[in-house]
Parts: sequence; C-alpha cells; structure tokens
Amino acid sequence: MKKYQLMAPGPTPVPSEVLLAMAQPIIHHRTPQYEALFIEVRAALKKLFQTSAEVVPLACSGTGAMEAAVVNTLSAGDRVVVVRAGKFGDRWLELAKAYGLEVIDLSAPFGQTVDAGRLAEALKSHPEAKAVLVQHSETSTGVLHDVRAYAAATRQHDAILVVDAVSSLGIADLPMDAWGIDLVISGSQKGLMLPPGLGFCALNEKAWRKTKTSTLPKFYFSLADELKYVAKNEVRFTPAVSIMVGLREALRLIEAEGLADVFKRHDRLARATRAGAEALGLELFARATPSPAVTAVVSPKGVDSEKIVAAYSQSHNITIAGGQGEMKGKLFRLGHMGYAAEFDVINALAALEQVLADIGQPVDFGSSVRAAQKIFTEKS
Amino acid sequence: MKKYQLMAPGPTPVPSEVLLAMAQPIIHHRTPQYEALFIEVRAALKKLFQTSAEVVPLACSGTGAMEAAVVNTLSAGDRVVVVRAGKFGDRWLELAKAYGLEVIDLSAPFGQTVDAGRLAEALKSHPEAKAVLVQHSETSTGVLHDVRAYAAATRQHDAILVVDAVSSLGIADLPMDAWGIDLVISGSQKGLMLPPGLGFCALNEKAWRKTKTSTLPKFYFSLADELKYVAKNEVRFTPAVSIMVGLREALRLIEAEGLADVFKRHDRLARATRAGAEALGLELFARATPSPAVTAVVSPKGVDSEKIVAAYSQSHNITIAGGQGEMKGKLFRLGHMGYAAEFDVINALAALEQVLADIGQPVDFGSSVRAAQKIFTEKS
Repeated sequence: MKKYQLMAPGPTPVPSEVLLAMAQPIIHHRTPQYEALFIEVRAALKKLFQTSAEVVPLACSGTGAMEAAVVNTLSAGDRVVVVRAGKFGDRWLELAKAYGLEVIDLSAPFGQTVDAGRLAEALKSHPEAKAVLVQHSETSTGVLHDVRAYAAATRQHDAILVVDAVSSLGIADLPMDAWGIDLVISGSQKGLMLPPGLGFCALNEKAWRKTKTSTLPKFYFSLADELKYVAKNEVRFTPAVSIMVGLREALRLIEAEGLADVFKRHDRLARATRAGAEALGLELFARATPSPAVTAVVSPKGVDSEKIVAAYSQSHNITIAGGQGEMKGKLFRLGHMGYAAEFDVINALAALEQVLADIGQPVDFGSSVRAAQKIFTEKS
Repeated sequence: MKKYQLMAPGPTPVPSEVLLAMAQPIIHHRTPQYEALFIEVRAALKKLFQTSAEVVPLACSGTGAMEAAVVNTLSAGDRVVVVRAGKFGDRWLELAKAYGLEVIDLSAPFGQTVDAGRLAEALKSHPEAKAVLVQHSETSTGVLHDVRAYAAATRQHDAILVVDAVSSLGIADLPMDAWGIDLVISGSQKGLMLPPGLGFCALNEKAWRKTKTSTLPKFYFSLADELKYVAKNEVRFTPAVSIMVGLREALRLIEAEGLADVFKRHDRLARATRAGAEALGLELFARATPSPAVTAVVSPKGVDSEKIVAAYSQSHNITIAGGQGEMKGKLFRLGHMGYAAEFDVINALAALEQVLADIGQPVDFGSSVRAAQKIFTEKS
C-alpha cells in the first residue's frame, strides 16, 4: 500500500474536517441556516482578503472570477495592460482578446517577472488605460510578482489594478487595502483548502466605480447585481452550497491558525522545498521572487520532466505536476499550499531522491531531507 | 429531535453514497484517474440526456449554463423568441436583454403554459428568429411546458430550440434526439441528486452550427473551446472536481434504477402529492400539465403561504419553498425530485395536515396520506 498524497499546485488536499462538513445533508440556500452561514463567511472573507470591501463569491472556478473582473469593469475597445510571464498571465491576454480589449502587452519569459518600472512607463505613455491585469503568484512558473510595486505604479492613474490571487490568497501576504489593490480575484481550491468550484471577487471603491461605466455584456457574473444580494446576506442564483459549507470550516481553520502564521508556514514549506531541490543539485526555475505556493524545478539535463511526474505517481502514489504550455517536459512542480505541512515536504523530497535514483541520476540519499530539516528546525 | 428533510424544489437531498464519494481525498484533474472518471461520466451523461451529442459540463450553476447557451449560439441584435410563464422564463428574458438580443415575448400568466400554436405563428411571422428559449419544467410554478410540440414547431425554421431542463433532467422524459431538441441545458442539484455547482450543455449539430456564426463575446463559457477538451476526455479549466466525483456515483444510481423507472417514480410522487393536497381541499396552482418535479399549491384563502413554509421548518424541520416573484405569499411548493421517495411524500403530507391544523384550518387527519397511498399501491 502506498498512501495517496496530493502535492500538485492545486487543487490541494482538503482537510477531513472540511470534507466531513461538506458530507452533511445539504441545506437550502434561502433559509435562516444559510443566512447564518453566509454572515460568518462574509466577515471571515474580508479578514482573509485583508479588506473592508465586500468579497463576492461566485459559483465558478478561478477563470470565471477572472472573467467576472474583466466583464464588470471594462468596455469593448478599452485599453488594458497585461503583465504576463506564464500560462496564467497568458490567460489574461486571451480573456482580454475575447472581450475586444486593446492590450498593452508587458511580457517576460516564463520564470521571470516584469519590473514595476516597465508598468509605470506603460501607464505614463497610455494614461487612457483602464486596467492592469496581473497574477500575484504565477502558478505555472512558481514566481511571485511584485504586486505591491504594481499597485504603487498604478495608483495615480485612472487604471485599476486587477490581481489574480488564485494561488496566493491565504498563502502569501496580500493586504489588499494596505497595498491599494483595486480588485482581487481568487478561487477555492488552493490556499482555502477546498474543492474547486467557488470563485471570489473583491472590489474597492475605485473598482466599483468602473462597474458603473462598463458596457461589456454580463448576466451570470454581474457583480453589481450580486452585491445587492450579498449586502442582504443572500445570493442571487443557486450557490455551490456544499463548497460554501466547506468554506465556513476552512475559514475557521485559517482563523484558528492565524493568518500571519499561515503565511509563515507557507514560506517555510517553500524555502525547505527549494533547499531540498538545490541540495540534490537541481536548478530552480524561478528567476525572480519565488512563490510560497509552488516550487518549479528544472528537470535534470536530458530527462523529460513528465517521466518524473509519472514516477512520483506510479512508484509513490504522489500527484505532482509537470510544466505547462511551452515548459512541458522541461520542469516539474511541487505544490505546498493550503492543507500542506512540513512532513508533506519531507515525503515529497524523499520521493524525489528515490525517483531520481530510479531514472539513473546520482543521488546522495537523505541530502534533500536534511536541507529541509535545517529550515524546519530554525528558530523563528 | 426532528429529522431534517429537504423537500424544496432544489437543491435536493444528496444520497449518502454520493456524499461519501465526494468526501474522499480530492484528486487532480489532469491525471489518469480523472480521465477514467470523465470517460465514464461522458458516456452516462449521453444516456441521461438521451442524445448522441456531447454533453459539456461546466463549473457553474444552472443559470451559468443558460448563459452559455445564449452566448455561444447568438449575436447581438439577433431576434429570439422567449417562451415564459414563470420566474425562470423571466430569466431567459433578462439574459436576452443583457446580451442585446431582440425579444419576441410569448408570455402566459404564472401557472399556465404557452400553446405551441403561438410559437408556430411567431416563427412564421419572424423567420429570421435565431433561437427559441424555453423551460421544460418551470420550477417556480410547477408547470411542464410541451417542449415536444415546441420542437415540432421550431424544426422547419432556422431557429434552434433551447430547453432549460434544470428541473426536468432525470425527472421527466426528455428524449433530446427523438424530439429534435437542439440545445438542452441543466444543472447538478435536481434530478442528478448532487450539490449545486455543475452546469451542463448538450448541443446537436444544428446548435453547434450556430456556434460558428455567434459573435457574442465569451471565454469561460466558450463551448467550442471546451468541446476540444471533452473530446480528449480532458477539461479546459479546473473543474468542480468533487461534484464530478459525486456525478459518477449519481449516474451509477440512475443507471441501476433505470431511466424509465426514474421517470415513473417521479410521476408517482407527483401524482400522490397532488392527490394529497386535493384531498385536503387545497387548490393546485398548475393550470397546465403539472411538473413531476414540484407541486405548487395555492395557499388557503387568507393564509400567507410564507407562514406555511415557516411552520414546516420550525415545527417539523422540513424545508419546502414558498412562491417566487409575484407569487410570493400566495403559494407553497413541495419538491419531489432527485433523491425523493414515496415516504418522503407521506411525511410531507402528514406534516401539511398538522401545519394546516396548527394555523386553524379544518383538517381531516390522514386524508391526504390515504390519497397518496392509493397512488402508491396502484398496480403499474
């Protein structure tokens, strides 16, 4: 028997408490029970997003929330800046094109980031830009973009800064109000430790103002309409009830651990994973601030990374992920987000050593585990 | 202790087998396990929709699937016929307006239906119409519209017939191919006995052809893009994994019972509910073919139906629903769909007798139960 372990960069494992809460008989969404649930969730989401703004939940996955951000704040022909250096950055570009937006494309190679200075210049040259679309954590490359600096660069302009925090919410510190981020979107299946199927949009006043002039057509994702219901602790359409029930449990777990400690845990897991990989002589893919959610590792020379992913699964029953898009075959990614703890990383590194040895790479057994333990035993 | 019973017209109870399947550790959606699941689900969905067409699952609730039907087949300024006689019919109208469509509005009062002859005439007068948007079962009124006749009226025209089968799929017979329905949408939380959060769209060839000329903007809901993934047993964006796992179990339950018997069961539950209500001297709201999913009952003279809904909940821990929109306060609705069986109806009727007596209505105790039993003991 091999115990199943999910260490992909999302979806992440769901704690038993949450799974069992969701396995309870389903409740109706127009009842006092659901209202009580929503009141608690509404308040806890604001804390998690570190904002006084409303966080609007939607029955969709993260990409649906990205789409909601676009169709609620923009109009066809609007100019937007897309900051991209990975597959999810590319998704902003595809979305912008699908909705007839004029794109100022600020791209960097996968694994790198876009300097905030480039954004500042682009906005100076294009003061008519209506939005800047970026990721916080780019899941495909394991890079954390400096959205704090992007916010500073955007603040004095008419444009709003829209941050995809799908793989950073509840993982990396992202104080929406303090940093002045106008619109944060996220999903349920990463830091929130839930199954996929819920998206979130949080808009500050500047972003809500943009919804008043936006003419892109919308109905299911209309945030202004949904907000009227949220304000009454109600929901416009049938919500993803079971995941909302799980959300309450997950938010309680985060509250109990403390948000600052949640961030510290992810940082420690990420540093240990990187140290472990480097101890094995492997190269990290991130050429900028690495994400605390996921570590992308370059496959050893001549080794197709899909072989490593397959060996993890077949020999050890551990699900990790390979490279996406142009990075397919070139890197593998270890997720350490959400319901992830120190010994998950120890397992993943021990497995990595065995996988590498199995495909004929020289391995000093225990070396990556030792490097991780050094991080875990640091006095903080 | 009062045992909790959910008898609203959706979401419906979820069988324990399905709840427990969904409570298993979450799997990743780009793995052989998910592919195997999807292969099974894909085939079973075609049987359920009674079609050889692909059924495309989407991470959204039923309204999202309605929107997907509209944005994938139509263009701004297109003329569409909206057939409506209830709150969900109104939703087609709102959707059509949100997307800049020109509406030919065929409405009937709540509780009634629109004769297929009116549709035939409208299409004759407006051969340029691109789509007819209807419900099969109108959840807000408990009426089943004659979509078979609508399909016959639509067939010789350019328009496609789009049927919202959210509260009829797996409840009332709806042979998509045999009746020539072009596009069927549905959701997970009714006949499929699942939590809400999955939508479905099934398009025949005529409907897929419309997607080639449609210019309404779309991304998250782009069915042509999603179809490319479905054909490879893959998914374009992160799916609602846990509900998909539940879907496999639910489809197995439906297969084991047999689709014809599933329809018979719903018909029997509906007839028993209606007979029970009538035995108490109550008036049924449906002035046309009643839906096998839900029975809408007119509140006794002078009684606010919200009082009945509240008494069901407070005195008996049974969740039913009141009237929606203009029918608020005037009717109450008993759902008997999905994971619903004979003794659920017996309970609901026994509770109804007690609720009515509590609010001072004259009640012959046992009379509605007896009427239901007469249906249940019929030789079929």
